[in-house]
Amino acid sequence: MLEELKQQVFEANMLLPKYGLVTFTWGNVSAIDRESGLFVIKPSGVPYETMTAEDMVVMDLDGNRVEGKYKPSSDTPTHLILYKRFPNIGGVVHTHSSYATSWAQSGRSIPCYGTTHADYYYGAIPCVRCLNKQEIESDYETNTGILIADSFDAEKIDYEAVPGVLCKNHGPFTWGKDAHEAVHNAVVLEEVAKMAYRTEIINKNVLPAPSELQDKHYFRKHGKNAYYGQ
Amino acid sequence: MLEELKQQVFEANMLLPKYGLVTFTWGNVSAIDRESGLFVIKPSGVPYETMTAEDMVVMDLDGNRVEGKYKPSSDTPTHLILYKRFPNIGGVVHTHSSYATSWAQSGRSIPCYGTTHADYYYGAIPCVRCLNKQEIESDYETNTGILIADSFDAEKIDYEAVPGVLCKNHGPFTWGKDAHEAVHNAVVLEEVAKMAYRTEIINKNVLPAPSELQDKHYFRKHGKNAYYGQ
Amino acid sequence: MLEELKQQVFEANMLLPKYGLVTFTWGNVSAIDRESGLFVIKPSGVPYETMTAEDMVVMDLDGNRVEGKYKPSSDTPTHLILYKRFPNIGGVVHTHSSYATSWAQSGRSIPCYGTTHADYYYGAIPCVRCLNKQEIESDYETNTGILIADSFDAEKIDYEAVPGVLCKNHGPFTWGKDAHEAVHNAVVLEEVAKMAYRTEIINKNVLPAPSELQDKHYFRKHGKNAYYGQ
Amino acid sequence: MLEELKQQVFEANMLLPKYGLVTFTWGNVSAIDRESGLFVIKPSGVPYETMTAEDMVVMDLDGNRVEGKYKPSSDTPTHLILYKRFPNIGGVVHTHSSYATSWAQSGRSIPCYGTTHADYYYGAIPCVRCLNKQEIESDYETNTGILIADSFDAEKIDYEAVPGVLCKNHGPFTWGKDAHEAVHNAVVLEEVAKMAYRTEIINKNVLPAPSELQDKHYFRKHGKNAYYGQ
Repeated sequence: MLEELKQQVFEANMLLPKYGLVTFTWGNVSAIDRESGLFVIKPSGVPYETMTAEDMVVMDLDGNRVEGKYKPSSDTPTHLILYKRFPNIGGVVHTHSSYATSWAQSGRSIPCYGTTHADYYYGAIPCVRCLNKQEIESDYETNTGILIADSFDAEKIDYEAVPGVLCKNHGPFTWGKDAHEAVHNAVVLEEVAKMAYRTEIINKNVLPAPSELQDKHYFRKHGKNAYYGQ
Repeated sequence: MLEELKQQVFEANMLLPKYGLVTFTWGNVSAIDRESGLFVIKPSGVPYETMTAEDMVVMDLDGNRVEGKYKPSSDTPTHLILYKRFPNIGGVVHTHSSYATSWAQSGRSIPCYGTTHADYYYGAIPCVRCLNKQEIESDYETNTGILIADSFDAEKIDYEAVPGVLCKNHGPFTWGKDAHEAVHNAVVLEEVAKMAYRTEIINKNVLPAPSELQDKHYFRKHGKNAYYGQ
Repeated sequence: MLEELKQQVFEANMLLPKYGLVTFTWGNVSAIDRESGLFVIKPSGVPYETMTAEDMVVMDLDGNRVEGKYKPSSDTPTHLILYKRFPNIGGVVHTHSSYATSWAQSGRSIPCYGTTHADYYYGAIPCVRCLNKQEIESDYETNTGILIADSFDAEKIDYEAVPGVLCKNHGPFTWGKDAHEAVHNAVVLEEVAKMAYRTEIINKNVLPAPSELQDKHYFRKHGKNAYYGQ
Repeated sequence: MLEELKQQVFEANMLLPKYGLVTFTWGNVSAIDRESGLFVIKPSGVPYETMTAEDMVVMDLDGNRVEGKYKPSSDTPTHLILYKRFPNIGGVVHTHSSYATSWAQSGRSIPCYGTTHADYYYGAIPCVRCLNKQEIESDYETNTGILIADSFDAEKIDYEAVPGVLCKNHGPFTWGKDAHEAVHNAVVLEEVAKMAYRTEIINKNVLPAPSELQDKHYFRKHGKNAYYGQ
């Protein structure tokens, strides 16, 4: 079932090592078929070198494995919550990519310092707090998803304009209209995290880019007046 | 038309991923045929993996597309202004290369700390201010070019001795006598930006290289007494 | 003798350049056959490009070369002591990998800043003191092993939960149930060292991850309630 | 003439891009035949991609080109002086490798922070001052060589125990018993420069490795009591 989606999810997972976002098996991509309410995700602990599209696991939104010989990624409950709470997304990515994870470990949101950031993320990329003891000890991965979605709601952040987040002491999640776009946003996040890190070293007193520049770059690529790309 | 120039521009664009200067499609190279007043530029949003020389777009200096099935790069108006204002250049490059962009995001010019810099750029590589709200909202890309040229004029910087610039909160532009030299200068800029970053970390109180050393290295490669290379 | 173990140790040694952990011959992997009390280790000064499984050296735990045409790695006495003092380990790795060695040179333990670290190392990765003059001048490599084991004993650190160490002014050693796992832990250490370095730059006042998060991540992969992987 | 030496020098030059020490043509290797007093050096401005052993240039110690269709590297007079003043060396390398050049630009010697450094360089790797105006304007490259040798003499640094130097605002030179060893020392210098940079960031108050450790590591590889390697 969902053979085409499995192929897409498999290929999107294989982009993670291609773009240098993962060491060993430290990453996972999923994508959802909104019609059936089923999503496809990478199996847990299977090396990229030997993984095939057949190994992808099909899940429903109640957390049941519908198809697949392997256990799904241990981060599956986080993906599940994001699909439930962010109804317009079609793909989710989790990595421990080096610069984004360093920002997450530092507990800081990534300020928008330039147009590379502004072309993809509208405003800072938020870092949500660490889960508390109770949240960690019961349904850790589910609570991670709930915290992300609750934080976006509380801060009135549009998840379609800010397609990624940092989880404190952990690492990044990104999303998009499909698995491929979610990976694209993970690559952008890593590059933006790297340049923001260096920007602050070069100028200790640097300020975020002016809001009019952020508006210009985001809206030249998104929305009805976009003119960037073909 | 201009098949040879299209081939050159195509090849020069393909050097950007080869030298690690671009992620996805974040870069563009153009070159001008001064006789006809036409320039050739990379199309917008076409991936490097599938791009061909045929995909290059031919433009005139009034901003009209003369040939090509794709839209030209969204940065085309900036290239156009640079060709108009810097009459001796034949090629222009824009990238979001990581270290140069970090300097641009920090809003600082890159001081000349050594001979690697001095061999190609005579004095600091300037960082021009961010555009203001009005400049951003009307003809953003054109105003970027105007600001660069006006800044070089105002600061009496010789665009042939300083073949590149940083645009605050954005990234670098470089140029040269043709597309290939413009790419060469983009590679040098990235390497120089990387070493200047590290130099300041190693010695917080570092000063620029003495002017006599800057003179020596620049003029052993440029001008009528040059003796470097074959 | 021990042909299978020699092959494993050879392959594990070849992973060091694959994962970018070594320059030239600056690294060595060994593994022990607990039944016979013999261990197999990389020869000294043989380049990775030409090394074969046949070149591996077989040693006993008294430090005698039992088989092999080359001298064993000069770090052999350190491996030997670790096998004696840490009875449940089966493989040992020494490298001069760049970030881990930088921490070792700085004389600091690596704090646990996030889940990447917590998934493999339970608590800080300790940096043991530099050997004193007397320890250096007599049986330097043996004394390195003794210092590591004594430090783990004195600090009551469980060598199975913390499968690696930094030696001040020198570099890292890691271990595991076999040669392959020891290499895996060396790769993790390097990645964790890199991210901890950046984390402290991004936030000068960063604190280690909360202990409940460290517990959660370590025990979801280790011990009888583990649920991570297949 | 000197066909074997030309081949060695060619191969040693080709190691520079292999080890990531050069961008474009920013590096050169030479080697001397002490019997004839002739040395072989890379031609100036010839790209690595197309260079052959035949392109190497043969020079005598008076600075005359004895054989070769190209001009020798513009740094040739520096190599020449080093061969004259350091009688036991057989090969010289100059690069603009990124970390070593950053230290040179910062004007600081590289302290010995650990055994990786101590295995190859005995004590700090010195950074000699920038040439003064007069030295720069007349025989710049010759004066660079003289300054290096004079500084080693004045500071009583043994050029065989410290096979490299940083030239302020410029970059590194290394040497060895032949071209290959000189390249080896250039690779080590870059790695040591990188780790020293990171070491100081991790611990602002770090001190050099104790002298007894520096002694131990240097003399286990060099001199009559060496026991490292085969």
